[in-house]
Amino acid sequence: MSTKTITDLRQELQYKIDTKTKPPGSLGRLEEIALQVGMIQQTSKPCIAHPHIVVFAADHGIAATGLVNPYPQAVTAQMVLNFIHGGAAINVFCRQHNIQLRIVDAGVNADFNHLTTHRQFIDAKIGYGTRNYLEEQAVSEKEAGSAIKKGREIVEAIHAGGCNCIGFGEMGIGNTSSASLIMSVITSLPVDQCVGLGTGTNEEQLSKKIKTLEQVHKKHKNFVGLSVSAMRILQAFGGFEIAMMTGAFLEAAEKRMVIVVDGFICTAALLLAHMIDHRVLSNCIFAHTSGEQGHEKMLRYLHAQPLLDLKMRLGEGTGAALAIPLIQSALNFLEEMASFESAGVSDKE
Amino acid sequence: MSTKTITDLRQELQYKIDTKTKPPGSLGRLEEIALQVGMIQQTSKPCIAHPHIVVFAADHGIAATGLVNPYPQAVTAQMVLNFIHGGAAINVFCRQHNIQLRIVDAGVNADFNHLTTHRQFIDAKIGYGTRNYLEEQAVSEKEAGSAIKKGREIVEAIHAGGCNCIGFGEMGIGNTSSASLIMSVITSLPVDQCVGLGTGTNEEQLSKKIKTLEQVHKKHKNFVGLSVSAMRILQAFGGFEIAMMTGAFLEAAEKRMVIVVDGFICTAALLLAHMIDHRVLSNCIFAHTSGEQGHEKMLRYLHAQPLLDLKMRLGEGTGAALAIPLIQSALNFLEEMASFESAGVSDKE
Repeated sequence: MSTKTITDLRQELQYKIDTKTKPPGSLGRLEEIALQVGMIQQTSKPCIAHPHIVVFAADHGIAATGLVNPYPQAVTAQMVLNFIHGGAAINVFCRQHNIQLRIVDAGVNADFNHLTTHRQFIDAKIGYGTRNYLEEQAVSEKEAGSAIKKGREIVEAIHAGGCNCIGFGEMGIGNTSSASLIMSVITSLPVDQCVGLGTGTNEEQLSKKIKTLEQVHKKHKNFVGLSVSAMRILQAFGGFEIAMMTGAFLEAAEKRMVIVVDGFICTAALLLAHMIDHRVLSNCIFAHTSGEQGHEKMLRYLHAQPLLDLKMRLGEGTGAALAIPLIQSALNFLEEMASFESAGVSDKE
Repeated sequence: MSTKTITDLRQELQYKIDTKTKPPGSLGRLEEIALQVGMIQQTSKPCIAHPHIVVFAADHGIAATGLVNPYPQAVTAQMVLNFIHGGAAINVFCRQHNIQLRIVDAGVNADFNHLTTHRQFIDAKIGYGTRNYLEEQAVSEKEAGSAIKKGREIVEAIHAGGCNCIGFGEMGIGNTSSASLIMSVITSLPVDQCVGLGTGTNEEQLSKKIKTLEQVHKKHKNFVGLSVSAMRILQAFGGFEIAMMTGAFLEAAEKRMVIVVDGFICTAALLLAHMIDHRVLSNCIFAHTSGEQGHEKMLRYLHAQPLLDLKMRLGEGTGAALAIPLIQSALNFLEEMASFESAGVSDKE
């Protein structure tokens, strides 16, 4: 699209927004979202079609040590089954808002042979959890590459099915630790500023978590290097689900999809995708500020302003699911509201 | 309900919330909402039934002077027709979320004879706009009393139809001025800290608006008095829609309904209702922080923490409409999510 045409479209959208029967600007952030989605879709009649949330699940070698997480590693697999049976929070919110939900085995330490034909399940297993990064690199170069590729393929298939709006979620006991390490390397903030309580850690566990992750950070410092590459960061810290989301973000942006960014771990994957191709950001709508303390700093780093702040820190894409109706509201007002002229309402004197 | 039973119910709700398959507290504000609605409805299975938004429309004598508002007074009546024809923002959001919408003529300076049989229209006209409070009291004692009573009756009828969750909206050119004056008297903040841009005023108009309202404040100071009464405040500053909302808040709380509080003008009415009966607050869920500058201070005065902050300042109940799906999400997770036990998911080690 030429520069001229882009300017025209932006003006056309802004005019459409400003002539609706409301004071200019009075729908606040919804007006920004309407404009953004119009620009992503390159139309003055943007719409959301077949919205999806894709939850990537994987295990982390570190989790078996119990140094960073209060829940046993087995919970990752148990939660995959909970997703499939419809009992998790993300199921509830997707049902409420008519969002399609897909569950990806990106690398859970369990087999789901009985699920391979399940409509919502996607088998993209890279391995049975990452290796323990206290001892070695979490992921091989080949595994990281495969995960990114798989993430792209999954989004490509969903897009081919008619979806133009996608959010990513995750499940993986221990994955706030990977996200904190990724964040620390990319934002250059010290590890202790990137680590939060995760899913229910107490203060004592938190200090153990910070100490452990500082050790990990130090161990992989030389490998990750100064001229950091997304690939090396993924190799050092994992996880499979984060690598897969990284690929998913990149593909969704290339397909000009609206991307609804969830919380801490999703945004860590976005930091990686952004390193690879900074253009991904223009497709992103940030759903919420997570209660996980590092998230706000990530958002500041990306100059992102999320729609919601409900102190949620559950993951699974739950923040994204709750934000999708707000995006829908933005497109609905643009499509359905009367203009001053059509409604016979007087504009300002 | 005895104190003992109330404590039991609170514990039962909290236990139900905490045993869902998620880390404790990880659904943040939604967990608080689930608990609050359970306590309002006195059940561990709270639900929303037939949610309504009621938009109260009325005119203000001051508006004809052009000193406080950029839009002509005729816009109030024009917007009532826009609501009835389905073209306003509140129509769009109510359709999206299956919320019933009612439009009340609380005192618009126009006749709507052709609408009296319209399903969504409620004729509760107190007069053809308030008087100009630069010159005299806006509303007589009798008018204020009638408006409060009408507000109660409207809510009573809607409740009788099976509704247990209600939000109020308003439309009235000039009504941010009444709301600012009410706020100033109740919170003891100086007028200039209570006045905002309203619906599209510029900086020059704003300073004229502040000067005018300071004059009004001074004029009615003795009448309003030190031991302020809600009735006298309403008489001095109006308007009909604000008085009607005051009654509506009181009735909704008495009927144990969930009340979704919209923005600046609604919250001014709530300040009045709260003066009359402070218990109304326990039924209130605050939808959003309005972009109108005084609103944040009102919320602080009431120790209220709204769900949304989208920089909206449109009125009509639009903030309330967008918050209702979040309240629904809170009740849905409580009702539909699996527990650790039912899903076979391990709790913390």
